[in-house]
Amino acid sequence: MNRRDLDFMLYELLDIGGLTGAPRFAMHDRAAFDGVLDAAMKLAEQKFLPHAAKLDANEPHFDGERVHIIPEVREALDAYVEGGWMSAAFDERHGGMQLPYAVVAAANGIFVAANCGTSGYPFLTSAAANLLRAHGTPEQQTRYMKPMLEGRWFGTMCLSEPQAGSSLGDIRTRAIPQADGSYHLVGNKMWISGGEHDLSENIVHLVLARIDGAPAGVKGISLFIVPKHRVNPDGSLGARNGVRLAGLNHKMGYRGTVNTALNFGETVPAVGQIVGSPGQGLACMFHMMNEARIGVGMGAATMGYAGYLFSLDYARQRPQGRPASAKDPASKPVMIIEHSDVRRMLLQQKAYVEGGLALCLYCAKLVDEQSIEQDPKRREELHLLLEILTPMAKAWPSDFCLEANKLAIQVLGGYGYTRDYPVERYYRDNRLNPIHEGTNGIQGLDLLGRKVTMHNGAALRLLLGRIGATVKAASAVPELAEYAQALKQAADTAAQVTMTLGQAALQGKLDLFLANAHLYLEMMGHTVIAWLWLEQASKAQAALAGAGAADRAFYAGKLRACRYFFRYELPKAARQAELLARLDDTCLAMSADEF
Amino acid sequence: MNRRDLDFMLYELLDIGGLTGAPRFAMHDRAAFDGVLDAAMKLAEQKFLPHAAKLDANEPHFDGERVHIIPEVREALDAYVEGGWMSAAFDERHGGMQLPYAVVAAANGIFVAANCGTSGYPFLTSAAANLLRAHGTPEQQTRYMKPMLEGRWFGTMCLSEPQAGSSLGDIRTRAIPQADGSYHLVGNKMWISGGEHDLSENIVHLVLARIDGAPAGVKGISLFIVPKHRVNPDGSLGARNGVRLAGLNHKMGYRGTVNTALNFGETVPAVGQIVGSPGQGLACMFHMMNEARIGVGMGAATMGYAGYLFSLDYARQRPQGRPASAKDPASKPVMIIEHSDVRRMLLQQKAYVEGGLALCLYCAKLVDEQSIEQDPKRREELHLLLEILTPMAKAWPSDFCLEANKLAIQVLGGYGYTRDYPVERYYRDNRLNPIHEGTNGIQGLDLLGRKVTMHNGAALRLLLGRIGATVKAASAVPELAEYAQALKQAADTAAQVTMTLGQAALQGKLDLFLANAHLYLEMMGHTVIAWLWLEQASKAQAALAGAGAADRAFYAGKLRACRYFFRYELPKAARQAELLARLDDTCLAMSADEF
Repeated sequence: MNRRDLDFMLYELLDIGGLTGAPRFAMHDRAAFDGVLDAAMKLAEQKFLPHAAKLDANEPHFDGERVHIIPEVREALDAYVEGGWMSAAFDERHGGMQLPYAVVAAANGIFVAANCGTSGYPFLTSAAANLLRAHGTPEQQTRYMKPMLEGRWFGTMCLSEPQAGSSLGDIRTRAIPQADGSYHLVGNKMWISGGEHDLSENIVHLVLARIDGAPAGVKGISLFIVPKHRVNPDGSLGARNGVRLAGLNHKMGYRGTVNTALNFGETVPAVGQIVGSPGQGLACMFHMMNEARIGVGMGAATMGYAGYLFSLDYARQRPQGRPASAKDPASKPVMIIEHSDVRRMLLQQKAYVEGGLALCLYCAKLVDEQSIEQDPKRREELHLLLEILTPMAKAWPSDFCLEANKLAIQVLGGYGYTRDYPVERYYRDNRLNPIHEGTNGIQGLDLLGRKVTMHNGAALRLLLGRIGATVKAASAVPELAEYAQALKQAADTAAQVTMTLGQAALQGKLDLFLANAHLYLEMMGHTVIAWLWLEQASKAQAALAGAGAADRAFYAGKLRACRYFFRYELPKAARQAELLARLDDTCLAMSADEF
Repeated sequence: MNRRDLDFMLYELLDIGGLTGAPRFAMHDRAAFDGVLDAAMKLAEQKFLPHAAKLDANEPHFDGERVHIIPEVREALDAYVEGGWMSAAFDERHGGMQLPYAVVAAANGIFVAANCGTSGYPFLTSAAANLLRAHGTPEQQTRYMKPMLEGRWFGTMCLSEPQAGSSLGDIRTRAIPQADGSYHLVGNKMWISGGEHDLSENIVHLVLARIDGAPAGVKGISLFIVPKHRVNPDGSLGARNGVRLAGLNHKMGYRGTVNTALNFGETVPAVGQIVGSPGQGLACMFHMMNEARIGVGMGAATMGYAGYLFSLDYARQRPQGRPASAKDPASKPVMIIEHSDVRRMLLQQKAYVEGGLALCLYCAKLVDEQSIEQDPKRREELHLLLEILTPMAKAWPSDFCLEANKLAIQVLGGYGYTRDYPVERYYRDNRLNPIHEGTNGIQGLDLLGRKVTMHNGAALRLLLGRIGATVKAASAVPELAEYAQALKQAADTAAQVTMTLGQAALQGKLDLFLANAHLYLEMMGHTVIAWLWLEQASKAQAALAGAGAADRAFYAGKLRACRYFFRYELPKAARQAELLARLDDTCLAMSADEF
């Protein structure tokens, strides 16, 4: 990660320091946040980065009895727990640091960029603990959440099944009520990250299942705690519970996070406790979904960022070729960063990864603002903004920062294609992000089918309002007027297109309305990223005059990347808008036998 | 591969059968070509496909003495040689089948789709043999080419060095003249596919090197034969020559083709013979470059095609989810091909892979037409067309059929990300294609900097003429008029943009002229693929009325994919043209310290 840019994003762009004015964060100041980020950088470099390539080449394996993971993972996670990271975002009363989510998200991004595989275990654990914080009983919090936050037990999220990934309403795992109020779970879960290992004393599985007799679909789903080892009333470990490893999934990338198929209750009963009320399982799970999805986008952005920085460094040091205007073949080769096409590949990466990072941090700050806002109306507004931005924060970085990783390989040429350099690994790792936590196709449906239409379009109006404020301010700055004008047009077009689509929905043409939802997601994503680039450029332009030499280059780079995005990228949204406005049914209408 | 589509391309679109009217191909007929393609499909399925995943997981390794390759590779290649494939495109007088290159290229595509790693060895051997056919002395042909075509010896192309990949003018390997007319080569070569193995009795390296005292740059480069084992006058093998394996490169994909760093003359002299005249090395090598680059595009297209077919099959059989308009969660799930977003991902793949394949086969047919054309003026025209299309045939499929492979993974979701399914391997394998045989950045420079400007733009005029003919014919067909109009506009715009760029070049602004060459390549590529889609649609539309049920669906699919390409893809070219016409210098002008 580029710490200078992270500081720019957090302090200059988002004014994270301002959060400390609220009682919830009053114990912190900028120096504290800096210390947190410094510590994350140091831990990532010393304990996460060094074994990233080794972990990729030596993925977890199952010998029939236990899952083996190279010891460096345990060492890194011990240091992570030691540093208090597991509970960094939790309140002090839970033993946490009570840090803003924006700061924790930035730190998480640093860990992912260094080693996504090792980072997976504690991230899942924090997320599972957070779910128990919100929906668990005090007794469940004491018995399960506490050891998780202490890093002694790890957690998982067991949603998918072999036949149900995107369509969670179709999960079949049964929860059979017992006389003592517990449940016995029976079924198969798929794609469970961290589902089996010896990294922690226990594994707390949070499992979606269907209580016998529950209605079909999502309304019949409940949430259960099913620990690997049963837990005695005093918190000590009891007998092995009926959760069994059915097998490991061997992935293209993200190999360090063990991914499992699990059987529940196959031979031994899998005893679980319900979390929240029956039928509320998906609601509980989705309560945390925004943060989970922002986390995915953040990881995608920082993996893209890692590739960008690596290829930038390479391009600055690799001599080859000469400018097009050079005639003498005996002249000294230049560094490849001098070639326009290499600069294009670097600038495109920069525009993507810094744009994606800005969006994720912007969303993370909304989480914080929501948590401290006292005014219910303003809190609801923050909530709506977060709702509409989340599918973009998940999908855009996972699509375009993967593209950045592709470009990083290209900058290195043949070297980039070898496993001697990390860029091919980033590319393999990042390919997961458009798939998990809701595929990007699902994000498109979520954005257009739910978020845009909710409360009569209130979320979109709020978003367009914020974009309009940026446009207005930037219009007054001569250097930015070109971009302000373009963004205004893109936002107006997006609003019109949404109206056109909405009419189709009102006329009951639901399938046509949603037929190009992914294209809508791309159009909105590019518009939102353009907005955040204009925000960045506004800050950079304002700061340029008073800046020192190094900062001047930094701000000039921001302005250049903004220009790149507005000239090379934003026009894509206009083309997509045209297509959307036609309610094109080319894809929808193709029959299966025509392929 | 979809054999129905291959037949459509070869016979209906390109009328390959018509080639048999020329004496060179008069010994063949359509039944013979069908037999060749059937045999390729059968051999690929029986001997290449079964070990593709195993070879990927067990890449060649070096134990310090020899390179080990799983035995299935040797078995497959024995069958390949047995089938006469090594010399399929060679004349009967060389023991070949004298097949049109278009048919051989299609067959090669079939082998690559089945197993690119194993295919690499014979393809390189044929290419090296072809170079000796064109530039070697009769004695060199007897001594080296013949055993290569017999499949007893394999070949390599040794161009790159650790410091010189894209910039071949900077290669440093020395060729020191000896009294007997031979040369001793001294230097290091990098990225040499098939550089060391025990698959054949000998390895014939074709090596670019610089004779002592030669001028700097490309004009000082000569070409040499340097066999692994020296060859006695009677053709038997002599002592080991001074070529030594310096190490293997371990790649993200394409793992089955061993890739090596080689040392020449480090301890033992590496004795070589010159091919052609001193200083003509690069010219000899580039004489074959069009076919090599078409071959890369063909492989990229067929790997994309393999992923498309796999994901299509999966989408037809995988039940999940319901239409947007379905209300009952207890209703039966549909196959995922019923979802518009999945169809979008399939249709996009179809548009890319069939478009890319059509372009490569079109170019391959130009190679054949050139070889049989008697009229020098028409032959020159064919040559110019081939020259301008080749960078697109290399780059477009390698960019967009890689994108298709990305979509194939997405269709399979989490399953596609695992190594249990081949789609992630295609994605890793295909990632090489934008890099080797001239990076796609180099292809952009080649297209705009050389091919478009050669002979005062004659090649571009010829291409626009062919596009115009298609537009004219399609304009008369009501169902195609929309596309004809759009293609006309795209072609006109491309012509205008080229003029604008050309003026900048004439004004000496060479760096600005070439600053967005990659964008120009994309714009031209999309325009050319749109042209070939309109050609395909024209054939399909004409055939539709008289077709049986299965063929009707096939032709309807062609028309649908054409519509997809014109509505969802071609508009990209207009946006790129706008940007190019502005002579935008955003990338060119960014200084290294601003990143």
